[in-house]
Amino acid sequence: MVKIAILGATGYTALELLKLLRRHPEAEVVAATSRENTSRIDEVHPSLTGQFSVRCANLGPRDLADLGVEVVFSCLPHTATAAVAPELLDLGMKVIDFGADYRLNDVDVFNKWYNVTHPDPERLPKTPYGLPELFREEIKKSALVANPGCYPTSAILPLAPLLKGGFIGGDDIIIDSKSGVSGAGRKPSMKTLYPECNESIAAYGVGTHRHTPEIEEVLTTASGVSAKVIFTPHLTPMDRGILSTTYSKPLKAATQEELLAYLRDFYAGEPFVQVVDALPSTKDVTHTNRCHLTVRVVGDRIVTVSAIDNLIKGAAGAAVQNFNVVCGFDETTALL
Amino acid sequence: MVKIAILGATGYTALELLKLLRRHPEAEVVAATSRENTSRIDEVHPSLTGQFSVRCANLGPRDLADLGVEVVFSCLPHTATAAVAPELLDLGMKVIDFGADYRLNDVDVFNKWYNVTHPDPERLPKTPYGLPELFREEIKKSALVANPGCYPTSAILPLAPLLKGGFIGGDDIIIDSKSGVSGAGRKPSMKTLYPECNESIAAYGVGTHRHTPEIEEVLTTASGVSAKVIFTPHLTPMDRGILSTTYSKPLKAATQEELLAYLRDFYAGEPFVQVVDALPSTKDVTHTNRCHLTVRVVGDRIVTVSAIDNLIKGAAGAAVQNFNVVCGFDETTALL
Amino acid sequence: MVKIAILGATGYTALELLKLLRRHPEAEVVAATSRENTSRIDEVHPSLTGQFSVRCANLGPRDLADLGVEVVFSCLPHTATAAVAPELLDLGMKVIDFGADYRLNDVDVFNKWYNVTHPDPERLPKTPYGLPELFREEIKKSALVANPGCYPTSAILPLAPLLKGGFIGGDDIIIDSKSGVSGAGRKPSMKTLYPECNESIAAYGVGTHRHTPEIEEVLTTASGVSAKVIFTPHLTPMDRGILSTTYSKPLKAATQEELLAYLRDFYAGEPFVQVVDALPSTKDVTHTNRCHLTVRVVGDRIVTVSAIDNLIKGAAGAAVQNFNVVCGFDETTALL
Amino acid sequence: MVKIAILGATGYTALELLKLLRRHPEAEVVAATSRENTSRIDEVHPSLTGQFSVRCANLGPRDLADLGVEVVFSCLPHTATAAVAPELLDLGMKVIDFGADYRLNDVDVFNKWYNVTHPDPERLPKTPYGLPELFREEIKKSALVANPGCYPTSAILPLAPLLKGGFIGGDDIIIDSKSGVSGAGRKPSMKTLYPECNESIAAYGVGTHRHTPEIEEVLTTASGVSAKVIFTPHLTPMDRGILSTTYSKPLKAATQEELLAYLRDFYAGEPFVQVVDALPSTKDVTHTNRCHLTVRVVGDRIVTVSAIDNLIKGAAGAAVQNFNVVCGFDETTALL
Repeated sequence: MVKIAILGATGYTALELLKLLRRHPEAEVVAATSRENTSRIDEVHPSLTGQFSVRCANLGPRDLADLGVEVVFSCLPHTATAAVAPELLDLGMKVIDFGADYRLNDVDVFNKWYNVTHPDPERLPKTPYGLPELFREEIKKSALVANPGCYPTSAILPLAPLLKGGFIGGDDIIIDSKSGVSGAGRKPSMKTLYPECNESIAAYGVGTHRHTPEIEEVLTTASGVSAKVIFTPHLTPMDRGILSTTYSKPLKAATQEELLAYLRDFYAGEPFVQVVDALPSTKDVTHTNRCHLTVRVVGDRIVTVSAIDNLIKGAAGAAVQNFNVVCGFDETTALL
Repeated sequence: MVKIAILGATGYTALELLKLLRRHPEAEVVAATSRENTSRIDEVHPSLTGQFSVRCANLGPRDLADLGVEVVFSCLPHTATAAVAPELLDLGMKVIDFGADYRLNDVDVFNKWYNVTHPDPERLPKTPYGLPELFREEIKKSALVANPGCYPTSAILPLAPLLKGGFIGGDDIIIDSKSGVSGAGRKPSMKTLYPECNESIAAYGVGTHRHTPEIEEVLTTASGVSAKVIFTPHLTPMDRGILSTTYSKPLKAATQEELLAYLRDFYAGEPFVQVVDALPSTKDVTHTNRCHLTVRVVGDRIVTVSAIDNLIKGAAGAAVQNFNVVCGFDETTALL
Repeated sequence: MVKIAILGATGYTALELLKLLRRHPEAEVVAATSRENTSRIDEVHPSLTGQFSVRCANLGPRDLADLGVEVVFSCLPHTATAAVAPELLDLGMKVIDFGADYRLNDVDVFNKWYNVTHPDPERLPKTPYGLPELFREEIKKSALVANPGCYPTSAILPLAPLLKGGFIGGDDIIIDSKSGVSGAGRKPSMKTLYPECNESIAAYGVGTHRHTPEIEEVLTTASGVSAKVIFTPHLTPMDRGILSTTYSKPLKAATQEELLAYLRDFYAGEPFVQVVDALPSTKDVTHTNRCHLTVRVVGDRIVTVSAIDNLIKGAAGAAVQNFNVVCGFDETTALL
Repeated sequence: MVKIAILGATGYTALELLKLLRRHPEAEVVAATSRENTSRIDEVHPSLTGQFSVRCANLGPRDLADLGVEVVFSCLPHTATAAVAPELLDLGMKVIDFGADYRLNDVDVFNKWYNVTHPDPERLPKTPYGLPELFREEIKKSALVANPGCYPTSAILPLAPLLKGGFIGGDDIIIDSKSGVSGAGRKPSMKTLYPECNESIAAYGVGTHRHTPEIEEVLTTASGVSAKVIFTPHLTPMDRGILSTTYSKPLKAATQEELLAYLRDFYAGEPFVQVVDALPSTKDVTHTNRCHLTVRVVGDRIVTVSAIDNLIKGAAGAAVQNFNVVCGFDETTALL
């Protein structure tokens, strides 16, 4: 059994993580941190009633080490993880960060988009991006993993192979994404009150969303082709799920069937990526760690449509997948 | 044109009121108050863009008098209206209170259930309850009207006639109500975050909801029969609408057809109460000032089912209806 | 009072039309047709209980003429209107068609996309497209009006002015639209069952949706610039509302402020188009005849976001607006 | 590995069953039947893509025997299971029926409420009701199990212990239940179209729902007290989940704390029933096999509130639980 701590355990991604770890035969949650909350974790999340007895506490790296914690999942806000990760790593713990702190390579890009000074800049370029489908070998060797953003996961999985295969160009990619409201977190806010966002869809962060540089950097790293994207997220009246529709320019002639075959081949053997013929719905993948994706040729554009659960493949499921890779467990453990 | 002020203009009921007054040929909104907000009212409520130019301001009774305000709609929290109503009335304004301050007759009951000391106890027993279907004559003569609670409206409309007609007893009435989330208001709160209440239904305030004494008092006043109710509200994943299912004991033999005929007769000529044969849905009445209600005989119980829009017949629409009664306009103006 | 018939009165657009006509001081609905349904229209649509007494019937043009019908709103499926419109027009009635029969100019394009032979090809190029904001003068003079499609309305209103003003090119326009489920109609179908489309978003008709040629033709006609679009509709878990996000290539340098100012100027005086600074939500416009739209400059793309209610500005409201134009009433009658 | 067949595999309960069996280490689905559908089961249910290769087929008992089927889960409509169960049992298969065919004891009650002639009346009184929390020993010994109805499960779990303990009377019980739309099945129907039931709540089957006699019979059997209930189901705008609020008369003085303690004791050791202090939400239990329930004393009534997932604890999860009991597996296998 691997002893686990969850930092920032009161939000939605932590809840999903707890549900998944509940099913993991090698995971034992021994600590759950919160700055203010001191309730039992199953009071914070009533859907866990009777399933966990650990109590939230404001614990530092030393406290976690004393508890014998071996792996830390951090659901802290950005820069908070990078402020404690060095000490956690020094104390011999492995760290899987749900946040953005180690996702980018370029600290200047990070500091500009997040409008902060990164507390741990050296590790930024060395930390693998936790998408095992693209970076499995790097993840295996690392004690620190940057769990991907939800929107980036949905966009990178269809686009990276097409870029890498030379099917599409990197300089004119449009990503139009639609996410459920859980992506906005569990903090009280008028914007995410039920009567504000129910029965309504809206774009937000047009041209300014922080997942833009993440998508560009990872696409570039994964494919070797410099990528530039326009990314528009939309808040959609549903709990969970992301659908991303992308539009890119073909670089060489290829039929829809050829593109589907190429993608099927690229993801052959990957348990969590299904290349499908029909247009995917988010409902097909919510409550799972899967991504369903497809491709169409429309006029002079390649259109991809991909669906994930933002809380699972886009957060907690990916984290458990990375946990499995890092710890040497079967990658699908607790995820099927 | 009647000059109108809205106190507490940033919430959902104020928004619905503004939409209705927009259609009223005799209403001119000249003031909208807020303690903190100083935006134009169409920035507070984007759905009003370009339709109102009045700006929110922290205005007192004197300011309103200076603006020539003749009728005040108050959407303030409880006791706040009773703190300013006396002065507003002294200054010659009419007041329609969306809150509970003047709904009860018994100040002790009020103080106990609301856990406060009522600031204006003398007016409590003299203020008519603003349900024109039952108290039209009293409303006509009053400068102050207590606009009914949303749940009470949905429960009183079917029950009061049955009690008054001697068809049901007053001592064992169960009211099981289901409301959309807008009833909880527009203040940020974790309880009403989209991902908390979407795809979920729950009871709340079991045995403790403040609409309980309101329903009991008004049923008793309207029917002459002392009424005792058990009232259970439920938060339902929809923006608006209340469905109330009531269970009461028959006092005399009557078929479903006889009860329907009696109710039809009771509400004959009422434009906003429809006695229907089929079981009503809240969708049939949302965005309208109507109540659809029906009755069934089941075993040894009389069951009624009634539907209203909590924001309209349960709040802003009733307020405009009372405005029409008080000012002598056709009661349906702006409400069809 | 103008005597009105509604053909195909059992669906969602007919319901919205009836609700609007209920408020129109010059409209009297004297006939509602259905091939099979013979119920009173307020039984077909319970939300109209007590508001209309007309009964559905299978009526032909002669029957309507005998009833004195002056204006016909047709909610029939495509080609069904074109099969009866000639006779209705010959009998002196005016016709507003909710369907696609007269929206395109080119009969070959129609026959290809709709896979039929158009029954009334001569009228196709002569019939005005019922978007008064762009074609008011033509509509005024016509006895037959082609009410616009819902998606096209949402896309044309932001794009046509930008094309006409030379701000964007016509050859690389992407339109990513999200619609509520009512757009799919009221026919039982597994695809639109609640548990199939609730809590889920999906693209459909990628590259094949029939609104594609409609958008292209109308943009071209309205702007004088040949337009080619890629249009992707998405089914969104909400009753009503369309949000369209478009991506196009700038032809000349213009800041966001300049583009907003240009659009404001273009739509100055239009009661139903609001150019807004903030990103619009569909909720801001549902249950209204308004379109909220805005524009952003993102990288080397112009992005527009526009919101309408698919059932009102995208169908029944536009039809009443056209009715007002055709009959010489104030264009906003029954629509504010 | 136990070889399993699913009869009527195209609906929502079958989908949930397949998802659960996917996680069961001892279950192998070898057959999925449908009268008309011949697709692969992962085409019928896109969320299963790549997870099952079995193809739907119109198979009879002999065909299933030839495939080596040992346990049959039947999701067929009522009377269809009872028409084939005798032969399946004769061929040595065990049968878990999702339908109502074997839930009642009294064939006359069955024939009256279901308006049919039961095809297998002898087995009716001998078949255990598949609620292991109340009838575990009977289920263990039976080759045929009547999986409980969803509403009955939600109502019986809180009420049976209170009746048995003499805390409440059996003759005046009101059950007001609210269910998600998936309970209505996957057949196209106007009533369950998204735009009909979204944003709306309505009662249905008032006084006539077939779960009424099921609840009465099982409460009576489980408690030894003759029970009579008034049961009102409501269609609630959510995919899944049932909340039941019950009102009954106390027979002896007991505080809320005493009642909670009694219920906790009654369900001690039951993995799938949690007696909770706070009022439960359906969201706390959806996607789980758990029931959360609580009790309140309100005036002269005992009020219980209980929540389950209608598709899991109310259908597929209970079926797997029964499968585990019948086959001697740990009862929680595949259900945590």
